[in-house]
Amino acid sequence: MIYLDHAAATPLLPAVRIAMEPYLSDQFFNPSALYLPAIRVREAYENARQELAMALGAKSAEITLTAGATESIHLAFQPFKNVIISDMEHPAVRAAAAARPNSRIVRRGYITEAIKPDTELISVALADSIFGSIAPIAKIAAAVKTERANRKKSGNNTPIYLHTDASQAPNLINLNVARLGIDLMTISASKIGGPKQVGLLYAKAGVELTPLISGGGQENGLRSGTENVAGVIGFATALKHAQGHAHANQKHYNKLTDEFYKHFHRDFNLLDEYCILATRTGKTLANFITIIAPGIDAERLVYLLETKGVYVATGSACSAKNHEENPTLKAYGYRPEWIFGYLRITLGSTNTLDQMQPAAEAILDAIRTESKRIPADTLKFIQQETKRLAIV
Amino acid sequence: MIYLDHAAATPLLPAVRIAMEPYLSDQFFNPSALYLPAIRVREAYENARQELAMALGAKSAEITLTAGATESIHLAFQPFKNVIISDMEHPAVRAAAAARPNSRIVRRGYITEAIKPDTELISVALADSIFGSIAPIAKIAAAVKTERANRKKSGNNTPIYLHTDASQAPNLINLNVARLGIDLMTISASKIGGPKQVGLLYAKAGVELTPLISGGGQENGLRSGTENVAGVIGFATALKHAQGHAHANQKHYNKLTDEFYKHFHRDFNLLDEYCILATRTGKTLANFITIIAPGIDAERLVYLLETKGVYVATGSACSAKNHEENPTLKAYGYRPEWIFGYLRITLGSTNTLDQMQPAAEAILDAIRTESKRIPADTLKFIQQETKRLAIV
Repeated sequence: MIYLDHAAATPLLPAVRIAMEPYLSDQFFNPSALYLPAIRVREAYENARQELAMALGAKSAEITLTAGATESIHLAFQPFKNVIISDMEHPAVRAAAAARPNSRIVRRGYITEAIKPDTELISVALADSIFGSIAPIAKIAAAVKTERANRKKSGNNTPIYLHTDASQAPNLINLNVARLGIDLMTISASKIGGPKQVGLLYAKAGVELTPLISGGGQENGLRSGTENVAGVIGFATALKHAQGHAHANQKHYNKLTDEFYKHFHRDFNLLDEYCILATRTGKTLANFITIIAPGIDAERLVYLLETKGVYVATGSACSAKNHEENPTLKAYGYRPEWIFGYLRITLGSTNTLDQMQPAAEAILDAIRTESKRIPADTLKFIQQETKRLAIV
Repeated sequence: MIYLDHAAATPLLPAVRIAMEPYLSDQFFNPSALYLPAIRVREAYENARQELAMALGAKSAEITLTAGATESIHLAFQPFKNVIISDMEHPAVRAAAAARPNSRIVRRGYITEAIKPDTELISVALADSIFGSIAPIAKIAAAVKTERANRKKSGNNTPIYLHTDASQAPNLINLNVARLGIDLMTISASKIGGPKQVGLLYAKAGVELTPLISGGGQENGLRSGTENVAGVIGFATALKHAQGHAHANQKHYNKLTDEFYKHFHRDFNLLDEYCILATRTGKTLANFITIIAPGIDAERLVYLLETKGVYVATGSACSAKNHEENPTLKAYGYRPEWIFGYLRITLGSTNTLDQMQPAAEAILDAIRTESKRIPADTLKFIQQETKRLAIV
């Protein structure tokens, strides 16, 4: 098995399993109970929150634990009426924005120009979930800061905040909140060797959140329900590991992708007998390789690769079933008339250098096989079109 | 250790651990991915949903998996404007109702009389979380059915549904949805030997839900986010176990409470030197024993008991930290002037017959110790008041 879909799901890191273990067995107590064993569980839970906060350079009180990134994103959007999101956001961000009274989708490169005097929230993924393309978040944060200062001067009391969905980023990008300059940040445990359905929302002190789910008053009233103790403790271990290894991961994945490309093809070439675009620039996450094979049904590639034990995604797996036109592809100018999908390779903890050659060759083989189904006139059209394509 | 707080948290059943295990290790794939190992995870997940549905006599499509009872309750309430809840509901139900445009709290015994032509949802806990008092749900369901028929006759198209929060019930009550006659039902895994932060909402076919959390479109668009595969599979095992053992549990807990009372005192007596009310009738869940010691700070009892390794709750643990006046106690006429709290004993999988005597004696001792702090005039007042008290 060569698993190349770490952006969709990751196995639990061994250290995460070990950290969770006591809370899946003896230490099962409800952290809200008053007796000592429960208080110890509360302490372990709050200690995990502290570790999560420290990994981000944040304070404990700024961290709200949730049941995953999708919930965190909705919690981030809930207080605001006027929001702007980039055109490269995950379906969860698009859905959270659509649920607000007034939302706009703006090209990522022009998002700060779209700010209006009543804009309350801007949301830009730190790295998008298809290409792993890294947003110029510090630049956007600076523009938000300037806007905030201008509003203060002009007596406009509307607050403006920047949220980033950092779900794909913790293994590779330093998420220090001051460094990034963001006000709100969503992180998921399940993408970094932590358990599924565990996430956090960082909200800078002063940002007033509105709960989605109320009741027992857990999470400082922002998110009720008996806490996922094991999950959160596993999450803390996973995030510490991800941030602690971000630099080493960068080097490691660069080495792996070099090897992959050596056996695939470098940079952005069109092969002779069929068309392939592989994205790779310094501005994408080092563990992402996205391959677009125009005129080819990417789902068929997935099935062909599966027979060889190579597992890849055809996109953000969590929305793959919808078959909606993909706004991120659209953002890059890929037209659905001749792009039927794409392969997303995301490297992770299970991958080794010696998997790269067989993976690259299997993918090439699959594309070669499928390309034979493309009618000659379609192929000619595609070859003309791809020359005009924007490069990621 | 004698753990008597199973309504707050339960250890994972061994069978639950075993069922979850593969999905915490090898079978980590995202169930939305397209390759075979992920499809197998999808199948296991949907199989768990089917098992959950079958345990309730429901269809798979009627089950939405959530991150726990609090979320399920909010999902149940979300589509409705005009709601009525009983006066014995968990804080999560009270919060979900309060978030609706028009909500009323009505005494449980009179809830069907409160139905108005625009009432859309009635919510009554199958058993409340303080006394375990079982609601006459079939009677309420019949009244809702009559109201529905009357509306049809009179041309009133407003739908009316009955939701029950069954969080405390699965170990003891047959939850067949047709038998109960309910339209919506909330169940939590963490109260029945399943993992924390896993729950379900049953919604009868035809009840149109509104998602709280959208995005990738999981759970038929009603609840997005990568699925908690291990958690849901553990939940299915736990619910099957709970429902399969409900009859045996009833007998077992009756035996245990008999033993407890033998060493405590039977029924509703005032002891000579201090005042104790212990609730126990055929209409409460067999695993609940609630003790009200007027004039005594129940939290102090918890700490005294903790030193003897006896762990009890002072209420619905998930709201214990709020120190709000308790509406369920209020519903029973217990006045905060001289009721400073109560002890809730909830038996469960960790309890054995031979724990009952030491538990009863430890609790009696603690109350005896604390009762000496009650001033003489207060004690006299309490003794007069308790004679007027409604019996649960």
